[in-house]
Amino acid sequence: MARRRDPGDGREPSALDQVAGNGLLNRRMLLGRGMVLAGAATGVAASAASAGAEPLADAEWSRHQGTTSKDVDPRSRFEDKVKRTLSNPNGEPRTQHARTPHHLLNGTVTPNHLHFTIVHTGAPDIDPSQHKLVIHGLVKQPMVFTLDKLARYPMESRMAFVECGGNSAPMFSPEPVQANVQAIHGLVSNAEWTGVRLSTLLEETGVDPKAKWFIAEGADKSALSRSVPLKKAMDDALIALYQNGERIMPGNGYPMRLLVPGFEGNMNVKYLRRIQLTDQPAMTFHESRNYSPVLPDGTAYKFYFINEVKSFITNPSFGLNLKEPGYYEISGVAYSGTGRISRVAVSADGGVSWADAALQGPLNPKAFTRFHMPWHWNGGPAVLASRAWDEAGNVQPMRSEFVATRGQTKQPVKNLLGFPNQHYNSITSWGVDSKGEITNVYI
Amino acid sequence: MARRRDPGDGREPSALDQVAGNGLLNRRMLLGRGMVLAGAATGVAASAASAGAEPLADAEWSRHQGTTSKDVDPRSRFEDKVKRTLSNPNGEPRTQHARTPHHLLNGTVTPNHLHFTIVHTGAPDIDPSQHKLVIHGLVKQPMVFTLDKLARYPMESRMAFVECGGNSAPMFSPEPVQANVQAIHGLVSNAEWTGVRLSTLLEETGVDPKAKWFIAEGADKSALSRSVPLKKAMDDALIALYQNGERIMPGNGYPMRLLVPGFEGNMNVKYLRRIQLTDQPAMTFHESRNYSPVLPDGTAYKFYFINEVKSFITNPSFGLNLKEPGYYEISGVAYSGTGRISRVAVSADGGVSWADAALQGPLNPKAFTRFHMPWHWNGGPAVLASRAWDEAGNVQPMRSEFVATRGQTKQPVKNLLGFPNQHYNSITSWGVDSKGEITNVYI
Repeated sequence: MARRRDPGDGREPSALDQVAGNGLLNRRMLLGRGMVLAGAATGVAASAASAGAEPLADAEWSRHQGTTSKDVDPRSRFEDKVKRTLSNPNGEPRTQHARTPHHLLNGTVTPNHLHFTIVHTGAPDIDPSQHKLVIHGLVKQPMVFTLDKLARYPMESRMAFVECGGNSAPMFSPEPVQANVQAIHGLVSNAEWTGVRLSTLLEETGVDPKAKWFIAEGADKSALSRSVPLKKAMDDALIALYQNGERIMPGNGYPMRLLVPGFEGNMNVKYLRRIQLTDQPAMTFHESRNYSPVLPDGTAYKFYFINEVKSFITNPSFGLNLKEPGYYEISGVAYSGTGRISRVAVSADGGVSWADAALQGPLNPKAFTRFHMPWHWNGGPAVLASRAWDEAGNVQPMRSEFVATRGQTKQPVKNLLGFPNQHYNSITSWGVDSKGEITNVYI
Repeated sequence: MARRRDPGDGREPSALDQVAGNGLLNRRMLLGRGMVLAGAATGVAASAASAGAEPLADAEWSRHQGTTSKDVDPRSRFEDKVKRTLSNPNGEPRTQHARTPHHLLNGTVTPNHLHFTIVHTGAPDIDPSQHKLVIHGLVKQPMVFTLDKLARYPMESRMAFVECGGNSAPMFSPEPVQANVQAIHGLVSNAEWTGVRLSTLLEETGVDPKAKWFIAEGADKSALSRSVPLKKAMDDALIALYQNGERIMPGNGYPMRLLVPGFEGNMNVKYLRRIQLTDQPAMTFHESRNYSPVLPDGTAYKFYFINEVKSFITNPSFGLNLKEPGYYEISGVAYSGTGRISRVAVSADGGVSWADAALQGPLNPKAFTRFHMPWHWNGGPAVLASRAWDEAGNVQPMRSEFVATRGQTKQPVKNLLGFPNQHYNSITSWGVDSKGEITNVYI
C-alpha cells in the first residue's frame, strides 16, 4: 500500500515537496500536479472506468418525490450521530455539560444546536417580554432595559469563541486519556454574536469615577455571578442578543448574555439580569473557589480571565482512523483570547520538525481560525501535532513546559468530568500507527 | 411624545448632529453623549427608579431548576414564530419555497434551519455512503468521488450568500406589495460553506483544452441541471460539504452542492452527482426557459449569472411598527455577487438626502454585510431606504431606472409566488406614518 514510486509520475511526493518530516507537503506542490492526490489513494482509477457512462443510473432517492419543506428545516437523518455528548442527561441536581462534536464539524462556525453549554441549575425558561436587565451601583443613574428597549440601540456583530475554563482538563492527566476531540476539547465553540456594546449602555447610565469592576449576575436559579474589570466593558464587552443570526439559545443564556470576548467561559454570564458597577470584585463562588486552582508553587491561579492561545487537530483525530496510506489534509482550529491567530505550525513526526499551516481567512480576533496542512501518510507510524501563536506573540506551550508551572494530576484522569485545574492550553498530539489507528499521545 | 427639547441637554439631536434629512445621525455623536438615546425614549427614567433596589426580586424562572440539556439543543419556545414561510406546505407536486425571516434575524449568518430553500421535487433522502460525484466529459480521465474520498482533499471555507434569481420578485409590481421582508426578500440567505475547490478536482481529472463550460446535475428527481462557464470552476467554485460547520442541510443539497459564489441560486446545484465538461452550454430548462425572462426591448435576459448588488432594510421594516418617537437604529443587509460591499447609503426622507451607513466588518466578498445607521424619529412621516455599492463600482439602481430597462408587471402582483421577471435588485423603501406604522412604498 505504501510502495514508493518514481516521484516523476506525480503519484508520490518527492523529498523536495516536503516542508517537514514524515510527509508534510508544500501546498504549492498541489497546484498544477494533477493525480498527486488521486494517485496517493487507492480505488479511484478502478471506479473511474464507469464515469464515462451516461446517463447515470438513478439512485433510489432520485426516482421519487423527496421530502416536503418544513418551516424549521430538519437535518438529514444520516447526521443523527452529530450531536453533543451530555454529562448529566437526566438533569440530576448538579452541573450539566454538553460538548461540541468538533471531530465531525468543519469550517469555523459552530451551529447553535451544537454549541457547547454548561448549566448549573438547568436552562431557565425565560419569557423575553418579562425579562429585564438592571444596570446600577456606581453609576450616575441606574437604569432598566427591556428587550424592546435594547432592540433600539446600536448593534454590533462579531465572531467569537467561548471556552469553559475547564475545557481540555483531561489533558492534565499524567498519561494520555484515550478519548476523542469532543470529549477532550468539546467545551469550546465559535459563533457570530450580535448585540449592544455594554459601553453604549454605560454611556446612558454614566459611570462614577470610583467604579473599577462590574458584577454580572444571571437569572438562572443559581444566580451565577462573576466580577469583570470595568476596562473590559469599555473595550469590547457585548450584551449579546443573537447567536448566528437568531436569538441566542436557552443553553447559551436566552434572551441575553454578557459576551466578554476571549475571557473564560462563565464570565460570559448567561440569562443576564444585572450589572452592578463596584470598586472591587465580589469574590463570588465561581471566582474565589471554583476557577481558582492552586498551582504547584502553592499560589492560586485567580482572576486570570483570558483563554490562552490554543489549537487542536480535528482531522485526522481519535476515532477517525485512516483506512489507507496516501494524501490527507490535516486540519483543526486555533484561537486566542488575546487576539488574532498569527501562525499555526504542524508536525507529523512528534515535534521533531514543524511546518507552517495555511490559515483560512478572515482572521477574526478572539475567534476560531481553521488551519490546513497537506500530508502524505506513507503507512508508517506518525505523530500529528499543532502549535499556535497569536498576534501578541504568545505561543502555545509544549506539554512539558506547561505542566512544570501548571501541574498535572497524580493519577490518570478516569472520569472526564473531574479535573484538578483549569485553562489547559498546551499541545494535543495524535499518534497514528501502521494500521491507521489513532491514539492520544504526549510529546 | 415628539417634543423638541434644548439640544444642549443631550436629549434630542441638534441639527449639527444630523448627517442627512429627517433625523439620520452622525455615529460619532453617540459617543460621550450619555442620555441621548435614553432621553429619546420614554419610560426609562420612571422604571429606573427601582433599579437601586437589591437583591432583585426573583422572576418565576429564577426560582426553579431549569430545562435539562439535550444532545441537540432546542430553541426557546418563545421563538417559535421565527420560522420560514412555506409556499407549498403540503408538498403538492410543484415547487416548494421556504423563505428566511430576515426581519427577525440580526448579524449576517443565517442559521441552517432558517436558510431559504427551493426544491422542485422535494429534498431527496440521500444516503451519503452511497452518493457519488462523477466528473467526466472533456477531461483527461473521468473520475468518481465518494464523500470519504472528498474528505481527504484540501478544504476551504468562505462566507457566501445564495440568492434565488426570483428573490424580490414582488417588487416588479407597479404598486408596492404590502408584505414583509421575509415575503419580499426571503429567498436569499448567508452561510459559511466549507468544501473542496472544484479546480482541485479538475487538477485530478485533467481538462481537455476544448472544454469551455461544465454542466452540473443534481440527484433530485428532476435532475436539475445548469451550465456554468469553466472559468468559474477555476475561479472560486466549491463542492460544498458543510454549511455553518455541520453537513449541509437536506433542503440545501445534502450531502453536497455546487457553490458558485455570487451566481444565481439554482446554479448552485444541490444533491450534486455529476459535472460534465463540455464545449457549449446544455440549454437546460432552468437556463433556456425559466430564468431567461424577456425584457421590455424583446431580448431575453439569459446567462446573466451574477446576483447584482443589492440591499434592504430589515429593521425597522414592514410589520415592525414603531411604538414611540425617539432613537432607533436602521439596519439591514447588503451583498453583491461581484465582490465586497464598498458603501451603503441610507435615506430617511425618501431619497432626498442620503448618508453613509456604518458597515460591520469583516467585509467578506460575495457575502452579507450588515449596515447600521443611527436615526432619531421625530414622530412625523418618514421614508427609509438603503442603497448599496460594491467594490467593482456597481450601484444598486433607483427603481425608475431599473424598471425602465427590466420592466414591471402590468397588474399588481397579488400572488407572491407568481413573477414575470428575475434578478430584481433596486431599492426597497419603507414608509413610516405618524402612528409609526410601516408600509412598502416606492420612491
